Amino acid sequence: MAERRRMDYSVHREILDEGAVDEMAKRSDSKPSQCEKFKKSMRCSGPRLKSCLLGSVPVASWLPRYSIRENALGDLISGISVGIMHLPQGMAYALLASVPPVFGLYSSFYPVLIYFIFGTSKHISIGTFAVLSVMIGGVTERLAPDSNFMTWDNVTNSSIIDIISRDAERVRVAAAVTFLSGLFQILLGLVQFGFVVTYLSEPLVRGYTTGAAIHVIVSQLKYTFGISPVKYSGPLSLIYTVLEICSLIPQTNIGTLVVSIVAIIGPHPQRRSSNSYLGKKLPVPIPCGIVIATIISWQVNLADRYKVDVVGLIPSGLQPPVLPTASLFGQVIGDAFALSVVGYGIAISLGRIFALKYGYKVDSNQELIALGLSNAVGGIFQCFAISCSMSRSMVQESTGGKTQVAGALSAIVILFITLWIGALFEDLPKAVLAAIIFVNLHGMMKQFMDVPALWRSNKVDMAIWVVTFILTLLLNPDLGLAAAIGFSMLTVIFRTQLPQYSILGQVPDTDIYRPLEDYDQVKQVPGILIFRSSATLYFANAEMYQEALGEKSGIDITNILSAKKKLEVKRTRHEKKNAKKAAKRKAVDMVRTTGDTITVNDPDPSLPRAIILDLSPVNFLDTVGVKALRSIQRDYGDICIEVLLAGCLTGVVDNLQTGGFFNDKVTKSCLFSTVHDAVLHCKSATTQSRDTHLNGTYR
Amino acid sequence: MAERRRMDYSVHREILDEGAVDEMAKRSDSKPSQCEKFKKSMRCSGPRLKSCLLGSVPVASWLPRYSIRENALGDLISGISVGIMHLPQGMAYALLASVPPVFGLYSSFYPVLIYFIFGTSKHISIGTFAVLSVMIGGVTERLAPDSNFMTWDNVTNSSIIDIISRDAERVRVAAAVTFLSGLFQILLGLVQFGFVVTYLSEPLVRGYTTGAAIHVIVSQLKYTFGISPVKYSGPLSLIYTVLEICSLIPQTNIGTLVVSIVAIIGPHPQRRSSNSYLGKKLPVPIPCGIVIATIISWQVNLADRYKVDVVGLIPSGLQPPVLPTASLFGQVIGDAFALSVVGYGIAISLGRIFALKYGYKVDSNQELIALGLSNAVGGIFQCFAISCSMSRSMVQESTGGKTQVAGALSAIVILFITLWIGALFEDLPKAVLAAIIFVNLHGMMKQFMDVPALWRSNKVDMAIWVVTFILTLLLNPDLGLAAAIGFSMLTVIFRTQLPQYSILGQVPDTDIYRPLEDYDQVKQVPGILIFRSSATLYFANAEMYQEALGEKSGIDITNILSAKKKLEVKRTRHEKKNAKKAAKRKAVDMVRTTGDTITVNDPDPSLPRAIILDLSPVNFLDTVGVKALRSIQRDYGDICIEVLLAGCLTGVVDNLQTGGFFNDKVTKSCLFSTVHDAVLHCKSATTQSRDTHLNGTYR
Repeated sequence: MAERRRMDYSVHREILDEGAVDEMAKRSDSKPSQCEKFKKSMRCSGPRLKSCLLGSVPVASWLPRYSIRENALGDLISGISVGIMHLPQGMAYALLASVPPVFGLYSSFYPVLIYFIFGTSKHISIGTFAVLSVMIGGVTERLAPDSNFMTWDNVTNSSIIDIISRDAERVRVAAAVTFLSGLFQILLGLVQFGFVVTYLSEPLVRGYTTGAAIHVIVSQLKYTFGISPVKYSGPLSLIYTVLEICSLIPQTNIGTLVVSIVAIIGPHPQRRSSNSYLGKKLPVPIPCGIVIATIISWQVNLADRYKVDVVGLIPSGLQPPVLPTASLFGQVIGDAFALSVVGYGIAISLGRIFALKYGYKVDSNQELIALGLSNAVGGIFQCFAISCSMSRSMVQESTGGKTQVAGALSAIVILFITLWIGALFEDLPKAVLAAIIFVNLHGMMKQFMDVPALWRSNKVDMAIWVVTFILTLLLNPDLGLAAAIGFSMLTVIFRTQLPQYSILGQVPDTDIYRPLEDYDQVKQVPGILIFRSSATLYFANAEMYQEALGEKSGIDITNILSAKKKLEVKRTRHEKKNAKKAAKRKAVDMVRTTGDTITVNDPDPSLPRAIILDLSPVNFLDTVGVKALRSIQRDYGDICIEVLLAGCLTGVVDNLQTGGFFNDKVTKSCLFSTVHDAVLHCKSATTQSRDTHLNGTYR
Repeated sequence: MAERRRMDYSVHREILDEGAVDEMAKRSDSKPSQCEKFKKSMRCSGPRLKSCLLGSVPVASWLPRYSIRENALGDLISGISVGIMHLPQGMAYALLASVPPVFGLYSSFYPVLIYFIFGTSKHISIGTFAVLSVMIGGVTERLAPDSNFMTWDNVTNSSIIDIISRDAERVRVAAAVTFLSGLFQILLGLVQFGFVVTYLSEPLVRGYTTGAAIHVIVSQLKYTFGISPVKYSGPLSLIYTVLEICSLIPQTNIGTLVVSIVAIIGPHPQRRSSNSYLGKKLPVPIPCGIVIATIISWQVNLADRYKVDVVGLIPSGLQPPVLPTASLFGQVIGDAFALSVVGYGIAISLGRIFALKYGYKVDSNQELIALGLSNAVGGIFQCFAISCSMSRSMVQESTGGKTQVAGALSAIVILFITLWIGALFEDLPKAVLAAIIFVNLHGMMKQFMDVPALWRSNKVDMAIWVVTFILTLLLNPDLGLAAAIGFSMLTVIFRTQLPQYSILGQVPDTDIYRPLEDYDQVKQVPGILIFRSSATLYFANAEMYQEALGEKSGIDITNILSAKKKLEVKRTRHEKKNAKKAAKRKAVDMVRTTGDTITVNDPDPSLPRAIILDLSPVNFLDTVGVKALRSIQRDYGDICIEVLLAGCLTGVVDNLQTGGFFNDKVTKSCLFSTVHDAVLHCKSATTQSRDTHLNGTYR
């Protein structure tokens, strides 16, 4: 590359202002109106209808073309692997959601089947997800707290909790909020609001999931230590819960703690071996951990002998659909909305990563509808809200999963477990499930390493990560997300409020203008001040723009103008005294003198002849921005400094026009394509404008 | 101007990429760090301390230089005029605030004196203000509703309201919220948060005050009709109140209504005459309306005979200071914050208008402190929150007021009235005060004309106006303001989400590039695609940017890449079969073939050789934006399209660098100052890159 022949940059043309360019390049006026565009997009036709239908049921378009030879084996192995992973995760995440473990299995079945039909991502594994589960847990424990189900036991003279009716109520709450979040997703998908996910920038999502993971961990500590802390809800509940747990640590159940420690330390060698040695021969991972734990627990009878909390009753078979309790909707509407956004955000961001890797497209609106249907149908079958889990999706992809068929097969595996062998896990200690959650979360904990990386690459994004994390910790995942999105939008405003204002100078012998403070060999053009802000000019920074222009140029426009006004008042008095004598010629002379006096009064005797505002970084102008430019033009014009604008986008020129910037005196001839055009214009116009000025015809 | 000689634009230089420019113009590395800047701004010195002290008590700097000859007469006349205006406004706005009228007089006295000492605006008239008063009214009626002061009257067998203790409680509430809002303002001023007012753009302030004016009018209708509607609070209370009033209209007190109609119609001719005929001889307006009304009411005994509600007891003299009830602070903290922001916003925007007109400066932080002290001290003297009133300020200016002395004189007038003649107005009907409010608000009603004007000049600003108005109506002035500010910030995000994506073409024979769709005579450079978004590239639109690039260029990068991947898989299989035979040379050939096949498969056979992204409208890049650019560079690079960036701001180049955009292969040589540089580079580099490509060394 180094030895490439450089072609010279050689341009020879007239100086072109905006009007001249418009004339030369024939600016076209007729644009299709918004209305026509809308009509066009609404037009209906046969093929369009068909593609629309196929688009809304993607399985109909890809399943007929399914290549058994290429995909079937991979999908089969991957489906069985993921299905087996669903088992511990489903049960563990059910604990997070504060519902009996079997409902986690249901949640790993119905929604997965629905997504198979409507989803467009081939590699993500839909199903239970820790962050959503802990959010559901917040809702269920808020609306069905233990205290509501206390009854007085006359035998032991203590209050006991009616666990069965409590859990039934919690399942109802979870199903209702899940159903509602599904409806929200369908609605958002139908109105093509898939773009909302763009507000969930990567630093935000990673900070958020890390914060949510801390919530997950804290909510599981009670199972690890075998204690029963009071449940807190609302902002700061995390801190109260941690304090509560610390105060209860002396009451730790030693048996449970031992089980936890073994379960947390245990899985590591087993996972490693299944990946390396066994893994190669046996592509399907066997959930050794929970099988061994269940057998030990059953044999040793942990539940009775050491009072270790176990999973308990797992009913075989499926349950009939039940319409969700609509009366609960009002109380969970906020949570449902948060669930729908978070669930969608996680699924779409993971889906996009795989789509990019394997070169296919994920339709964001269709994904919303697919997830929404999964949740809505799931809600009817008493599932809790689902999204996709990072760990399962990784397994689905790495074991050779090629299409959504893998997901469907995993659902069948779960169905098999639910129907026949689920009951075998009744003796599994809950501490083991908590350990499974901890191990699954270790990927999210790694996200803490983002902070130093972002510190180096982009401090604002680091701020978004950290603030999102802290807000999620303090305000819980639902409110925290809203606050974090608000904050990340505010950063955009803040960035436009802290722009870099610079005076530009010419790179010698070129038409390139760069900030004086950044380059040593850049020279200011004599008599011309070139000013640039690195941000769009609008209401939030229009005033600062004017201030910065005054500061950088060293022209105290307020002082000069008020001095001029005082002189004018004096002149008027003087005129009145000599009223009849004063000829017109004399008055004009007086103006000249006034102008000179001001120049002498000013600390900087060499006021520039012209100011060029480089507006190329301006994306749009609002009325406040246009007013700011107009007042700059007027004020500096009053002290005989010409103000030129350079590098306006087409849209900005339109904004100037509709905003009333132009009038009889100010025309498009003060707009230039490039800074260099404006500079050359000033150089050529100087002598003439001086002449016209002396003749009194120039403003 | 038309006959100016045009100088030619003639540039002859090498094509310069970013690296070459850096070298040529000697980019400087050493910048003063943030820390040093901070230290510098914190440095303390004698003169600095003095100017700081003078800055915080402006009266000490301008009063010694007060020119009696120039200003005294104007200030005297203006002070007396404004003082007399304070009387009806103070009493009327006290009704709005739901406190006895005399507290309106106090509010027109203490804060005005304090502002005289600390304020920097010479022309605004500090004192009671309708919008703030109605906000105070909302608080007082919420915390001290009639229902709290009901007692059962055994004589009449009906419940009566203990008006004296109710009003005392309301005064306490008003003083507490006023004191707290003052503290907020002082605090905001001390931390130099005067810039928050920049979020109150002009369309927002005008929409807001119009909405608040509707609230004011509705709250006064009860006095106009002489009815007693139930007071509603919270969102939508305006609508409930209007419905309530409509249902009560049959109970209208005819006497009160007649007084109202006369008072509303009456002031107009009187005002006009004081402006034109009498006004010229007698610069001080006499509040004929309320004097006449009082006399009539007293003579006819409206209160007893027609049950017209009159002002009632006006105690003479001032009241001793009372510390505000701190226990109320918790309940009014939100209202106090809203009051402090609104009060400051109104005062500063009006102050700036006059400052601009008369060529002096208003220090926004000092204004915050001045208003804050006025409110805090006012709160101790049982005033309600003040700001500046548009109508009084206009009178202060037009009657010749030159400095803050006019304000101080108006306070003395009010003191005089309070001490001696206030009690004379005890028979003034409240309906007359309501009429005064209506008449004062007619300026705000004129603001409805903004809507058509904004529709023509800027539709987004019109949307801000209308949404602010509606939110203020529905959510009341406090919450409505917060929601409106949120909305106006969202518009900034929305504008960056709906950018204009364009393909640029060359204006023939120039180095100027303009959107193809806007100009007829603009030609696309063969083999080069120049793409520009009119918005900054960041998380909210990074994905759209990539989509728009694909759409506008007609290159379906996902399809091409997946086709390429499939071919590569086939190639790998093919290679395995002929594993040993395949020489290195052959493999490279294969890659070429692959590339060719893709090109043939593509519907558009003429893929460009290079894509130039014009980044001149980009203000900053976040990590998501950098990633988008990197993936564009990688993906298009994979199908042998070179991606060049043009027109990056210095800050954007820094963002690219820290964001990890550059690596061994991608250097600053793909960055160009102008689009034309990049185009020329492509033209010159084509042959070479083709060569290197065939030799397999070029990616």
